[in-house]
Amino acid sequence: MHPFSNNPSDTIAALGEQKLLQRIRRWLGSAMPAAPHGMGDDCAVLPSPRAGRGRTPLVTVDPVIYGEHFDDSVAPRAVGQKLLSRNLSDIAAMGGRPNAAVVALALDPRVRIDWLEGFYRGLAANARRHGVPLVGGDLATQRGGLVATLTLLGRATGPRVITRAGACVGDFIAVSGVLGGSLASGHHWKFTPRLAEGAWLAARPEISAMMDLSDGLAKDIHTLTPPRSRAALFGDLLPIRGGHDLHAALSDGEDYELLFTLRGEPAAARRLVAAWRKKFPRVPLTVIGRLEPAGAPSDGTIDLTAHHGFEHFG
Amino acid sequence: MHPFSNNPSDTIAALGEQKLLQRIRRWLGSAMPAAPHGMGDDCAVLPSPRAGRGRTPLVTVDPVIYGEHFDDSVAPRAVGQKLLSRNLSDIAAMGGRPNAAVVALALDPRVRIDWLEGFYRGLAANARRHGVPLVGGDLATQRGGLVATLTLLGRATGPRVITRAGACVGDFIAVSGVLGGSLASGHHWKFTPRLAEGAWLAARPEISAMMDLSDGLAKDIHTLTPPRSRAALFGDLLPIRGGHDLHAALSDGEDYELLFTLRGEPAAARRLVAAWRKKFPRVPLTVIGRLEPAGAPSDGTIDLTAHHGFEHFG
Repeated sequence: MHPFSNNPSDTIAALGEQKLLQRIRRWLGSAMPAAPHGMGDDCAVLPSPRAGRGRTPLVTVDPVIYGEHFDDSVAPRAVGQKLLSRNLSDIAAMGGRPNAAVVALALDPRVRIDWLEGFYRGLAANARRHGVPLVGGDLATQRGGLVATLTLLGRATGPRVITRAGACVGDFIAVSGVLGGSLASGHHWKFTPRLAEGAWLAARPEISAMMDLSDGLAKDIHTLTPPRSRAALFGDLLPIRGGHDLHAALSDGEDYELLFTLRGEPAAARRLVAAWRKKFPRVPLTVIGRLEPAGAPSDGTIDLTAHHGFEHFG
Repeated sequence: MHPFSNNPSDTIAALGEQKLLQRIRRWLGSAMPAAPHGMGDDCAVLPSPRAGRGRTPLVTVDPVIYGEHFDDSVAPRAVGQKLLSRNLSDIAAMGGRPNAAVVALALDPRVRIDWLEGFYRGLAANARRHGVPLVGGDLATQRGGLVATLTLLGRATGPRVITRAGACVGDFIAVSGVLGGSLASGHHWKFTPRLAEGAWLAARPEISAMMDLSDGLAKDIHTLTPPRSRAALFGDLLPIRGGHDLHAALSDGEDYELLFTLRGEPAAARRLVAAWRKKFPRVPLTVIGRLEPAGAPSDGTIDLTAHHGFEHFG
């Protein structure tokens, strides 16, 4: 069977990302365990032969693809750096630390040697910075293409792994760093994965759920929002990158910041913010809203239906 | 920088696969540990926080790429099956067993829904057959492309991991199954990874080195051949798939059979073959030659320089 169709209704673009993910779950059936041991979170939690002994093993995989995640304006070193950092951000979002990586490249035979040198040197420099040995990989030919896929193995830093599930009505919503303008500012490749911050948050019992922001706050916040509730976010609280606007902060994507929810009273949220500022004085932490019952009045909160994050296969 | 060049001398095609691998080692430097903890074998051996306790963890990554590893003549279910089986073959070649897999897809938005359903169902059926949970993955857009990359985690089945290094002059060379004609016969997607056989061989102390055949015997045998020695292979001993010839058996690639070396006298090789036939009566095992000193007379052996396996980026 030819894999592509020119009849739009037959294609994955027509299905859209959410429905496609539902179908994949159905197609995989029992071959895919339920989250967090299957798809649906930043990392998968690996089945361990010694459950309860040692730190929980984690795995995540993310690519960089020419024409999608980088173009000719991005230096090859930056592409290599970005490939590892994207995956480190996923490990950070579970409160983990990285152990080792493998990288698989699909390369057109016309790829420039000096492009590839820059890519590998950027990847290696970032790997040394984070103490991640590159233990193996694969090289294959793809005519006309350039895809680098990195699989990152890691472990939880403490007894608890923070997943995307766990938030309740009443929880505060907080975010690290500033949002929006990732592409224009070069943040999308030079960001610092929030590994120390993620591990620190995972050790605090009041943190109920966490993820990294990759497709834009307006889209990603739905992932943390439990059924029969809504995220009440306040536009004037949002930490926006200088030179960008509220819409950019909600929709641009590739922020690679931690988005998380925390239990408790306002005083508990204030204590967390104060402790964070002492521990991470150079990284902003902002409480941007709260989870409310689905029917609650929405006065003054952002109308999330007016903003869209990054949609795959669009 | 634009990643592609129309000046052939600037490209990875001009460099060729072997030189490219040497360059990559240099570019990665200390970010890549030495084999078996870095590139250079069928799987990488993972650094373990509890060295000496439990079975050695292994990891391997291999893709299937439209236009390279499959075309329109291969059913989508077969593509999904092949993707896992290729990686299982690498785990088998180290004497390991699989634990879990993640799969990353780069997809053109025009990919047919029914193609993708077939792919995932084929992958899932194979995963259930081998007891490998698909624990996570990633979906990304690649305009004009279709790449599926699977990373497979596993563990050694015994205290010993068999690598590609370890063969000595005097060792016999043996191969499982029959060789050649993989594409024409459909073997390239419907083969059975030699997991039971690899684990059985890894438990035998006389096995000195092992790999899986993917690029053709004439090319892959050099990987097992230590310095200052040569592989003396006998054409009339080679197990050739029916309807194919010696050249096909040496050059076609995608055999996914185990190629290994064993120490000792001819009687030890005979004992191994006899034990194999009792244990695996349906899988041929053939002693095809021996490692000789580099300068030894080559009467009657195959001139390996006259045959070439699959060359990447050619």
